[in-house]
Amino acid sequence: MSSIPYRIYLQEKDMPKYWCNIRAKMKQLPDAMLHPGTMQPCVKEDLLPIFCEELVDQEMNTTDEFIEIPEEIQNFYKMYRPSPLVRAYCLEQELETPAQIYYKFEGNNTSGSHKLNSAAAQAYCAKKQGVTSLTTETGAGQWGSALAMACAYYGVDLSVYMVKVSSEQKPYRKILMETYGAKVILSPSSTTDSGKKILAKTPDTGGSLGCAISEAIEAAIKTDNCKYVLGSVLNHVLLHQSIIGMETKAACDMYGIYPDIIVGCAGGGSNLGGLIAPFITEKIQGKNNIEIIAVEPASCPSFTRGKYAYDFGDTGQTTPLMKMYTLGSGFMPSPNHAGGLRYHGMNPILSKLYHDGYLQAESYIQNDVFQAAQTFLKCEGILPAPESTHAIKGAIEQALKCKETGEKKTIIFGLTGTGYFDMAAYNSFNSGDMTDYIPGDQDLQKGFDTLPKM
Amino acid sequence: MSSIPYRIYLQEKDMPKYWCNIRAKMKQLPDAMLHPGTMQPCVKEDLLPIFCEELVDQEMNTTDEFIEIPEEIQNFYKMYRPSPLVRAYCLEQELETPAQIYYKFEGNNTSGSHKLNSAAAQAYCAKKQGVTSLTTETGAGQWGSALAMACAYYGVDLSVYMVKVSSEQKPYRKILMETYGAKVILSPSSTTDSGKKILAKTPDTGGSLGCAISEAIEAAIKTDNCKYVLGSVLNHVLLHQSIIGMETKAACDMYGIYPDIIVGCAGGGSNLGGLIAPFITEKIQGKNNIEIIAVEPASCPSFTRGKYAYDFGDTGQTTPLMKMYTLGSGFMPSPNHAGGLRYHGMNPILSKLYHDGYLQAESYIQNDVFQAAQTFLKCEGILPAPESTHAIKGAIEQALKCKETGEKKTIIFGLTGTGYFDMAAYNSFNSGDMTDYIPGDQDLQKGFDTLPKM
Repeated sequence: MSSIPYRIYLQEKDMPKYWCNIRAKMKQLPDAMLHPGTMQPCVKEDLLPIFCEELVDQEMNTTDEFIEIPEEIQNFYKMYRPSPLVRAYCLEQELETPAQIYYKFEGNNTSGSHKLNSAAAQAYCAKKQGVTSLTTETGAGQWGSALAMACAYYGVDLSVYMVKVSSEQKPYRKILMETYGAKVILSPSSTTDSGKKILAKTPDTGGSLGCAISEAIEAAIKTDNCKYVLGSVLNHVLLHQSIIGMETKAACDMYGIYPDIIVGCAGGGSNLGGLIAPFITEKIQGKNNIEIIAVEPASCPSFTRGKYAYDFGDTGQTTPLMKMYTLGSGFMPSPNHAGGLRYHGMNPILSKLYHDGYLQAESYIQNDVFQAAQTFLKCEGILPAPESTHAIKGAIEQALKCKETGEKKTIIFGLTGTGYFDMAAYNSFNSGDMTDYIPGDQDLQKGFDTLPKM
Repeated sequence: MSSIPYRIYLQEKDMPKYWCNIRAKMKQLPDAMLHPGTMQPCVKEDLLPIFCEELVDQEMNTTDEFIEIPEEIQNFYKMYRPSPLVRAYCLEQELETPAQIYYKFEGNNTSGSHKLNSAAAQAYCAKKQGVTSLTTETGAGQWGSALAMACAYYGVDLSVYMVKVSSEQKPYRKILMETYGAKVILSPSSTTDSGKKILAKTPDTGGSLGCAISEAIEAAIKTDNCKYVLGSVLNHVLLHQSIIGMETKAACDMYGIYPDIIVGCAGGGSNLGGLIAPFITEKIQGKNNIEIIAVEPASCPSFTRGKYAYDFGDTGQTTPLMKMYTLGSGFMPSPNHAGGLRYHGMNPILSKLYHDGYLQAESYIQNDVFQAAQTFLKCEGILPAPESTHAIKGAIEQALKCKETGEKKTIIFGLTGTGYFDMAAYNSFNSGDMTDYIPGDQDLQKGFDTLPKM
C-alpha cells in the first residue's frame, strides 16, 4: 500500500477560502442569458425581483477567478467539511486494475449530498440581505433537505414546493425537511394561481418539477421580503459547488496526486462543474491535459444526444433563456431512479466547455450503473445515491480500460451523495425489476419541437 | 473562537492500533458468566459451539489492558474512520453556556452507527477461523446493517433474523441488508424449530428480539461451519467499541482537551463502554475524576430502576447468566422509538462499574430527548438516531447546569448514529403524536419476577 491514506481530510487551516469561477479563464464566454420577453441579454435588474442580490452578482461575474467565501459560510462549511478524498484501494483490488482510483465523497452530511454547499451560500446571502423567507422546489428531495438544513441554521423561513408524486415516493424526505422546520407544500397546490390552474385542468395530476418551479417563483414574488432559490443549473450554484474541486485540488497538491481523468455525474451540472473547476481553468490555460468525463443517464441524455441551443430552464417556459445542451423544455424524461439527473438542460458554462471540446460525455442505462454501484458498495462500504452511481460506472469503465492497456492512470470521481432515501430503487434492482427506458429518436424530436424559435 | 477546529480528524498515522480492555484495570472484576445448566462459571469450551474462538478469548480476557487490532480490521476501519470529534460551537451559542461541548460522531458510515466497529471485528474473526457463514438477529436494524456491510467486505455469508414487526416498520433497513448480500429472514420463521413452535402457538405474532435470538442461535448450531454473533451486551463487543474512546482520547491528548464529563446513551452498553474505556481505566487508577453519565430511556430504565442480579441475556432464557443491572428478561419494554435502548439488561462490566460508583445514570422520556434532538439538529445540522438523542439530552442538561453556575466544564458526548431510517419517529414528534410510557412499579415487578432464583 502506498503512503497515501485511505481518506484524505484537509486540516481545517488548509480548507479553501475561495470559490473558483471557471468563466474568468474561459477563452470564449458562454452566450448571455436572454430575457424571455425582450430576447435581449438579461441585466442585473431583471433578476433582482426573484433572486438575492449577491447571488445575481455571482451569476453575472465573468471576471474574478477566485471569489472569497464569506466567513459565515466558511463556518457553516466547517460543520460538515472538509469532505474526504478517498483512495478506493478495495475497488482497485476488486477490479484488478493498475489504475489508482479516488473519490471525493460529498455524502457525509444529513442532507446526504453536495447540495448543501450551495444551500448554505444561498441561505446566508438571503439572511445578509435581510430577506426573511425563501421558496424553492424539490423533486428527488436532496436540494429541499439541504436548503431546510441551511435555513434552520441561519434562521430564514422556507417553503418547499415538492412534486406531489415525489413526496409519495419519498415520504421520509418530506419529514426530514419538516424536522428542520421547513414548510413543505405538495405541488400542484391551491396556494398559487399556477397551481390552481393546473389542478382545475388535471385534478389528479402527480405534479412535475416544472409546475413546482412556477409555484415557487410565484410565491416568492407575491410574498413580502421573500426570494426564490434554485439548487442547480445556474452559474452561481456552480460557483458554490467549486468548494468540492478546491478541496480536491488542495488534497492532490498536498499528496502529489496528479489526476489523468476526472469523472462526474451530470444532471444540471453543478456537482461536475464544482468538482472540475480549478482543474479545468488550468486545462484551459494548457497547464494540464486531464480528461474530463460527464456521465448521464441514457434516459435523459442532454450532452450526448441533446442540441446546443437557447432554451428555457423550466417546462412552463417562464425563465430567462440559456444557451445550453438541451433536450427541449418539453422533453419528458422517463421515471429513472436518479431524479437529480432527470433534467432536460445543462449548465451553460459546462455546455460551452463541452461544445469547445474540453469535456467528454457518456451515457449509461440504470441497470448498468446500479450493477457498478453494487460492486462499489460491497468493497468500499458506502451506499451511493442513484445519481452518484453514474460516476462510479464511468470511473470503473476507465479503470477497466487501464486493466486492458496496463496504464497506471489516476482517476478521480465525484461521489455526490448517499442512497438512504432511495432504497426503493435498490430494491427494484435487487429483485431484477428495474426497467430501462432509452428514448427513441421520435421521443427526442418531441422535446426538440418545444425549443423556442430564435 | 478557540484554535481547536470544529471537527478533529486524527491523521491516519495517529489512529489507534489497540483496543482497550477495561477489566485489566478494574479493582474488582465483574462476577463470572454462569452456565445455565450447571450454574458454574462458563469455560471457553462452553462458548465455542456458538461463538468464534478469537471472540471467546476476547470475552474471557481480563488481564490485557491493550489488545492489538489485527491489521485487516485496521484496514477496514480506515474505510470510515477516524470518526470526527466535533466541537459543538453552535450548540454552545444556542444554549448560551460557558461549557465546552464536544461530540464523537459515529454516524458517518452507511450502516449509520457505531455498530460497524464490532461488526468488522466479528466478521474478520469468522473469516480468519474459516467460518463460512454467520447468523445474527436484529431489531432496529443498525446491527444487521453493519454486519451485512462487514460480511460483504470479508466475503462471509450472513443470515439475519429480523423481528417481523421491525421489518414492517423499517422496510428500508431490510433492503439495505439485502443490497449488501445478506439473507434477511423475518422472525418468527418456519426455518427453525423455535420459530415453528412460536408460529404454531401464535401464528399472527410480530415476533420479538428474544425469539429472533433463539432462531439465530439454533440456525448457527445446525449449520455446518456457521457461528452466531451478537452486536451488544457482551464484553468482546465492548472491547471492539473501545476504538471510539481510543480515538477520542488521542484527539483530546493532541489538542489539550480535558473532559470533566462524558455522556453516553446506554442500551446494552457497548457504545458507552467503548467511549469511556481509556478514560475510566485512568479514573480507576485515580488519574482523573471525570464524571461519567449513562443516559437511558425512562421506558426501559435498567440502571436507574433495575436490580443488580444474575439474569439471562434473552427472553427465551437460554443464554449463559450474567451479573448485571436488569429489569428481568421477561420485562416488556414499551414501543419506544429508540429500539437500540429497548433491552432489559446491561453489559456486566458497566454494571459492575455502576455498582462500584464509577458511573452515574439518568433517564428521560422520549418527548424530552426528541426536543433536545431538535435543538441540536437545527444548529449542528446532524439528524441524530433516536438512541443518540438520549446522550444529547444528557449533555444539554449538563451544559445548562454550567450556565447556572458559570462553570466552564468540558463535556464530551457520544453521538452514536444517524436517524435516516427513523423518520417515522421524527414525524410522530413533529406532529405532537409522540406518547411516553413510564413503567409503573407493578410493571417492573412483573419483570423482576422472571429473574432466575439463585
